[in-house]
Amino acid sequence: MDVQFAAAKISKYASRESGDTLEMIERPHGGISLVLVDGQRSGKSAKAISNVVARKAIQLLAEGVRDGAAARAAHDYLYTYRGGKVSASLNILSADSRSKTFVISRNNDAPVIVYTCDKGLYLLDEPSQSVGVHQTTKPVITEFPIEVGTIIVVFTDGLRHAGSLSGSNNYDPAAAVAQLIAENETSPRVIADRLLAESLAMENGRPQDDISVLVASVLPDLGDDIRRLDVHLPLV
Amino acid sequence: MDVQFAAAKISKYASRESGDTLEMIERPHGGISLVLVDGQRSGKSAKAISNVVARKAIQLLAEGVRDGAAARAAHDYLYTYRGGKVSASLNILSADSRSKTFVISRNNDAPVIVYTCDKGLYLLDEPSQSVGVHQTTKPVITEFPIEVGTIIVVFTDGLRHAGSLSGSNNYDPAAAVAQLIAENETSPRVIADRLLAESLAMENGRPQDDISVLVASVLPDLGDDIRRLDVHLPLV
Repeated sequence: MDVQFAAAKISKYASRESGDTLEMIERPHGGISLVLVDGQRSGKSAKAISNVVARKAIQLLAEGVRDGAAARAAHDYLYTYRGGKVSASLNILSADSRSKTFVISRNNDAPVIVYTCDKGLYLLDEPSQSVGVHQTTKPVITEFPIEVGTIIVVFTDGLRHAGSLSGSNNYDPAAAVAQLIAENETSPRVIADRLLAESLAMENGRPQDDISVLVASVLPDLGDDIRRLDVHLPLV
Repeated sequence: MDVQFAAAKISKYASRESGDTLEMIERPHGGISLVLVDGQRSGKSAKAISNVVARKAIQLLAEGVRDGAAARAAHDYLYTYRGGKVSASLNILSADSRSKTFVISRNNDAPVIVYTCDKGLYLLDEPSQSVGVHQTTKPVITEFPIEVGTIIVVFTDGLRHAGSLSGSNNYDPAAAVAQLIAENETSPRVIADRLLAESLAMENGRPQDDISVLVASVLPDLGDDIRRLDVHLPLV
């Protein structure tokens, strides 16, 4: 199998700094974890919050700490550091090559969209608290086997709130993913770019919030055992 | 400008675990850093070493520590932790969006290949020590502006030693990059894949060592201000 991830990320209009932070880390027992954090508010202060939360989570994941404990620790750290006054949403998406499972950790009111060949399209939308403000916050964890055909879409608030200020209906990420699956689209790059482009269109290209989309898709083996990483960093 | 990075990484033949570790981290003042470490020997023990060195470096870079200090600290940590008995090569490739410069940090006997429109193709090959074994090891640091047309190729030992055991000549990464530039190739993905494929061919598809290639290329602005990340993780 070839587990592929693609992320697309844009800042709030006229904001130099995105308040969302996405980091990736190798799991010491095999596999990788991606951590997506949306800090409260936007701009510099949001960036500082999301950076601290993401940093704590990946630092622990890199040491082999399991996902649930890393999410709890990231909460405890922010709660202590900022006295329970600032919040951040936190998602961890891990592909564990030892257990051959995806582990999805949610501290985010926004759902995670999952498609599997067996179950079709569904949402991970159990009530879930952001980190930083309530004393005993814990993540909602979901684990299932890595199987060809599975697609997972994780996003920050900005995606589903796109369009809300212009008076039109909000953007519906789940409907968009259903459409892409109906088109037999399996490329995580295409899916991430399409979701971001559609939500941006609903904001007339001037997003009112930072928007980040992270997509995992399991494709058949490419047969070359080569790990690959690609990054695009626009620089003004 | 659009700063693009591409990495390709393969394990030694019949070795489940690569002794090379590549990690990426966002710089808190803007931009990103990629850290590439080649642990002494191969397999599990090499992985443990490269993981510790990469982890220490990215942890500090994530906190805003400058590259040279992060490389020194990674050395000090490994030297202390393993009593000066194990070594690792360490390269840090950073695109700093505040200073608009690339910062290249070498603790690696292997050179870094650089192409700029002004200077053409040249090597960063000042003598440089691996981390972990000598008491006062420091990195060789090179910094220059991020400009369209610039290409940087960082690799671990396995790439230039490909072919050495089969009695043929070693693979020559600099000659290969010169050829790609003559073909006007600017895609870091194409460059990384070509270098890896050519070196693998010299090993008859059975590499005697872990091989990792990391390429940066500065292309004109795509005009969309979207950050993108793509990862492929083959899973047996």
